[in-house]
Amino acid sequence: MEFASDNAAGVAPAILDAVVRANAGFAIAYGDDALTRRLERRISELFERDVAVFLVGTGTAANALALAHLSPPWGAVLCHSEAHAIVHECGAPEFFGGGLRLVGIEGEGGKLQPQAILAALDRHFGLRPHQMLPAALSLTQASECGTVYRIDEITALATLAHERGMAVHMDGARFANAIARLDATPAEVTWRAGVDVLSFGATKGGALAAEAVVFFDPARAETMAERRKRGGHLVSKHRFLAAQFEAFLADNQWLKLAAHANRMADLLAAHLASAKLKPVWPVEANMVFVRLPQALHERLQAAGAHYYVIHADPPPCTLPQAGEGREGGTSGHVLVRLVTSFATTEASVEDFISLVKSAY
Amino acid sequence: MEFASDNAAGVAPAILDAVVRANAGFAIAYGDDALTRRLERRISELFERDVAVFLVGTGTAANALALAHLSPPWGAVLCHSEAHAIVHECGAPEFFGGGLRLVGIEGEGGKLQPQAILAALDRHFGLRPHQMLPAALSLTQASECGTVYRIDEITALATLAHERGMAVHMDGARFANAIARLDATPAEVTWRAGVDVLSFGATKGGALAAEAVVFFDPARAETMAERRKRGGHLVSKHRFLAAQFEAFLADNQWLKLAAHANRMADLLAAHLASAKLKPVWPVEANMVFVRLPQALHERLQAAGAHYYVIHADPPPCTLPQAGEGREGGTSGHVLVRLVTSFATTEASVEDFISLVKSAY
Amino acid sequence: MEFASDNAAGVAPAILDAVVRANAGFAIAYGDDALTRRLERRISELFERDVAVFLVGTGTAANALALAHLSPPWGAVLCHSEAHAIVHECGAPEFFGGGLRLVGIEGEGGKLQPQAILAALDRHFGLRPHQMLPAALSLTQASECGTVYRIDEITALATLAHERGMAVHMDGARFANAIARLDATPAEVTWRAGVDVLSFGATKGGALAAEAVVFFDPARAETMAERRKRGGHLVSKHRFLAAQFEAFLADNQWLKLAAHANRMADLLAAHLASAKLKPVWPVEANMVFVRLPQALHERLQAAGAHYYVIHADPPPCTLPQAGEGREGGTSGHVLVRLVTSFATTEASVEDFISLVKSAY
Amino acid sequence: MEFASDNAAGVAPAILDAVVRANAGFAIAYGDDALTRRLERRISELFERDVAVFLVGTGTAANALALAHLSPPWGAVLCHSEAHAIVHECGAPEFFGGGLRLVGIEGEGGKLQPQAILAALDRHFGLRPHQMLPAALSLTQASECGTVYRIDEITALATLAHERGMAVHMDGARFANAIARLDATPAEVTWRAGVDVLSFGATKGGALAAEAVVFFDPARAETMAERRKRGGHLVSKHRFLAAQFEAFLADNQWLKLAAHANRMADLLAAHLASAKLKPVWPVEANMVFVRLPQALHERLQAAGAHYYVIHADPPPCTLPQAGEGREGGTSGHVLVRLVTSFATTEASVEDFISLVKSAY
Repeated sequence: MEFASDNAAGVAPAILDAVVRANAGFAIAYGDDALTRRLERRISELFERDVAVFLVGTGTAANALALAHLSPPWGAVLCHSEAHAIVHECGAPEFFGGGLRLVGIEGEGGKLQPQAILAALDRHFGLRPHQMLPAALSLTQASECGTVYRIDEITALATLAHERGMAVHMDGARFANAIARLDATPAEVTWRAGVDVLSFGATKGGALAAEAVVFFDPARAETMAERRKRGGHLVSKHRFLAAQFEAFLADNQWLKLAAHANRMADLLAAHLASAKLKPVWPVEANMVFVRLPQALHERLQAAGAHYYVIHADPPPCTLPQAGEGREGGTSGHVLVRLVTSFATTEASVEDFISLVKSAY
Repeated sequence: MEFASDNAAGVAPAILDAVVRANAGFAIAYGDDALTRRLERRISELFERDVAVFLVGTGTAANALALAHLSPPWGAVLCHSEAHAIVHECGAPEFFGGGLRLVGIEGEGGKLQPQAILAALDRHFGLRPHQMLPAALSLTQASECGTVYRIDEITALATLAHERGMAVHMDGARFANAIARLDATPAEVTWRAGVDVLSFGATKGGALAAEAVVFFDPARAETMAERRKRGGHLVSKHRFLAAQFEAFLADNQWLKLAAHANRMADLLAAHLASAKLKPVWPVEANMVFVRLPQALHERLQAAGAHYYVIHADPPPCTLPQAGEGREGGTSGHVLVRLVTSFATTEASVEDFISLVKSAY
Repeated sequence: MEFASDNAAGVAPAILDAVVRANAGFAIAYGDDALTRRLERRISELFERDVAVFLVGTGTAANALALAHLSPPWGAVLCHSEAHAIVHECGAPEFFGGGLRLVGIEGEGGKLQPQAILAALDRHFGLRPHQMLPAALSLTQASECGTVYRIDEITALATLAHERGMAVHMDGARFANAIARLDATPAEVTWRAGVDVLSFGATKGGALAAEAVVFFDPARAETMAERRKRGGHLVSKHRFLAAQFEAFLADNQWLKLAAHANRMADLLAAHLASAKLKPVWPVEANMVFVRLPQALHERLQAAGAHYYVIHADPPPCTLPQAGEGREGGTSGHVLVRLVTSFATTEASVEDFISLVKSAY
Repeated sequence: MEFASDNAAGVAPAILDAVVRANAGFAIAYGDDALTRRLERRISELFERDVAVFLVGTGTAANALALAHLSPPWGAVLCHSEAHAIVHECGAPEFFGGGLRLVGIEGEGGKLQPQAILAALDRHFGLRPHQMLPAALSLTQASECGTVYRIDEITALATLAHERGMAVHMDGARFANAIARLDATPAEVTWRAGVDVLSFGATKGGALAAEAVVFFDPARAETMAERRKRGGHLVSKHRFLAAQFEAFLADNQWLKLAAHANRMADLLAAHLASAKLKPVWPVEANMVFVRLPQALHERLQAAGAHYYVIHADPPPCTLPQAGEGREGGTSGHVLVRLVTSFATTEASVEDFISLVKSAY
């Protein structure tokens, strides 16, 4: 009953096989190899335009490098107040960005709304040179609350950002989960909707350690190679990053793995709802947020179920219902996050649900 | 009718005289001169303990150097959401701090409350190494809303900060105005109440350009000399900074100048209140925030009154009454800031009030 | 005939097998897993004391994080003028170190000499706060010229560094090659000789991507976890880094792989010497630097031999004989670097030597 | 007998008068005042083209802001190995430049030679993205050794820099001394010769604290205002900076003051040469470098003469004669620097020379 993180899963077999296969012979280091070239073409095909691709080993690196490239040190990056970049990257964007500022903006279900962005722009910016320049907007797709931006939502946000001179970044650590859910192509969800740069994650989706920063306008990527190198993120045996990503994309593997994870989340959500434990946000990717009675939570933990209690107070996103508490609150409930992955089995979901039903 | 900023005033005569006097002969550069040594001793006397003093030319430098010295690059500095450091320094603390983060916290009348700090700590921190470390608390005394922290308020905030491992910084750009208002010594308002480092401003109070970073524990200042130098803030003809500060402090000049500015603010406030234009926050320093009817505002501007309209939406601090708007709002009011200084004359206050009364 | 880089080799079979084995089941992410704990203990055993270990994916990350941890932003790191950190990391140490300075010092055969360090200290440092503080000394073991520091050499350098208040860092990207050559234990070559922090490389030695920053005094590593995280170098599926390193160390694999590479370099050197192409520096690790006649060089390239021409002018380290040139020089010679690895075969060495002999 | 530094002098009377005069009335803060606008036009006139001007309070700030604006964080700035920016600014350019690298290049008499720059480019740069990008060349005019670049020398260096994609910065802390010596206009010595950005110093020349960063292409200065602000270098009572600079330039004051300082240096040099103490470099500005016998040095010090002993070993620039030592050397000589200023009197020069002659 492993629902703590999609990072707790190992490597999807097809991807691990590709790593093993890539080990044959010698290959020039630092990304000048044939496999990397092929992967770059593949990603351009996937997005239906020429893109510039920079592979790195962690999602934090992808986000921090991308945001630092889109904002001057005196720029601000607007993102959701619960975005991974602001909450869980220990200041990596600020570090890579030479002191740029992340401005967290509240929004229901982990999603940004144009009105809130306008209000933030109005409040914090405008008086040059005393105030920082709004430089980029960062959206997480799928969001940290397990929701997914629709194309029109992305378009509206990107249009607003561009009108105000801001670039648009998408944190796609769970991009596969979003695409697997939406009836849309990768191009439609990104550059056609106004996204300038994508952190395209494969690790949570089944790779060992492989993330791609994708620039939809390759000219924008000038000197990104230097930025990556001096961040220590140019991997020497680079073919193995490319091999992972190639296998991730081959034969729609990425969408199949993500669709499985999404289905497992749906299954969890459906069962929980039928047990009167309705998820607090729509379950649109591979995460289920639900309030559990304290006693149930304790029994689940004792039985070996792994998941995170959300400690934020207020909870990470505006809650749909008032009057319910977090861990230790008066209501005796905890808000927990259940994450599924390509490796989640129906059996483990059913075990979990059985425990819930028996205990509740 | 100059109420735009205390920086619009020139230099107080006694201070300018001291600059002229300091010009006699040669003096060793970079702060190794006798005048600087004497001033350091004078500041130690003022604060009733040995302190380490670093003079710089701007308040932004003082704040940024101080905060960078108190926080590691992966640390966060908590401050009021309208603190000068977060709103009007273009990211200087982040720059000097190597990417530290400023976390703005809302609070009535420009003042922080312990509960709000606890809530912020609870929400944003705790998961190492994914989250930044809370490193410092920065208070502005007098605050950006023209209010003044009482000693017990400072003590409560500092105690909380220290309990959580945070250092305490005070932005005293208008420290003189606060001391002139409070029945308290500089020591009581700072280190005796738990303040670790003070940005002690003289510029707004009548100097040409002189601010002091004061470390109440000199051991804490190790390598601050290098930090200042590489920030470009070690002035070569340093005696002139020391001369300004010495004259500022001599014969209680600083408190006399500040008391005058405060009195002018009181006078403005009293007259405005009698005209049914009650200031929105208590007038405790040299600033008056008041909502003016749009028509009155326009007539004042036309008559040459200088002051700033607060453009923030919502206004810079939580407003005491709902239903009233900012510039262009439906209510037809604008929230404006009137700042007095050592150079403000009673005549200019009376001219302004006459205009208000005649126009209103 | 692949002699371009040890990074051109793939992954040693035992290490790749370990990666595959580590894929079983779930494991908590970000280094809190059992495999990582076990590896940490293993490295402590190897070095015969409790150490703090931080795994990362690249050698540049290891060096930059280590040096940034040892030097304040206003500090200088002294290293050989041809050190990887100063020549081939695109400013990563400066970036991670918030603007620290690398000071390159010349030295025969890629090795630093105490006298040269003293001269550099005398020339560039001492006037506070105008000059940077000497903060760390970085040695590369084995060096970029393929030579190896003896224990007494390390001790002399470390003693000097410590006397001057500098910490000692060892860039051990090819630490295995050095240990395999020296009749000494890892402890003797590091902390017993005065090394404070080691970048312990496995990648060039046969891993996929695994480097360890080893602090011999764990207390010194405080907040290194935050530093790594915000550098984007905390790998989520961390067990795979630990698995690589564990297999690297298991059963002396690391020394066996390195000994093979060293032997192949010896073989190359011996054959070249017998062809009157004596290596320019002692061949003590897995690299051979030799001057080739231009015509021979061209024939080797045409035949598909891969190696780098050293483009530096003067060559990367002080040359033992005067009067000989680099590529395009009047002498018609090029200085080239031949690198062997665990994957270098005797056959490829013999092919190369045959070509040399037939062509020469 | 004050020859330690031109910073030991106070403020030239005409400049101090202007500061006092500027104190009348109120003025909008932060550089939006009429005096600043007028000064900007004056500097454009002086350079015979529209320039962008940014006033700051220290030379280190001017240099660091300028270089950071010309180089990306992964760029290198080439300068003389004894340039103030690399030797005496405690890493300010690296700090402001987000980790850029200063590459010091040796050159006779404090001046760079094209061949040495080409050699440095050849040695340290070229392999992307592993090596930093050469981004700017910084010349000091007059140099730290008291010499002055001729126009054709500047043109040759700037042409080379531009051909290699580097911008050209001139550190003009003693620009006045150079112009006063050369038969050339400010335009000829700067942008007409290829200089892109000038740190135009007034402080050493007689101001209290005023330096200007001058961009000869105003478009290049975009966001420099933000850079200055977040560096803490936007002075609030900005009119006083402008007043100093205006008085410095008015009525050729700057050149008159510099010419006097130069004459005093010439006088010192002539007398010393007649006493067989020939300066080691041509005396072209306001500095004389000379080797003094140890006994003479001690007698001068005892008599109250102030000057600096150059502690560098080897001395700061390549010495014209071999066999002579520095302080404590076997030869019993010390290399000393004598600096004159607008405030140096003929009497003090004569006193010094009398001492020399009597003692020698």
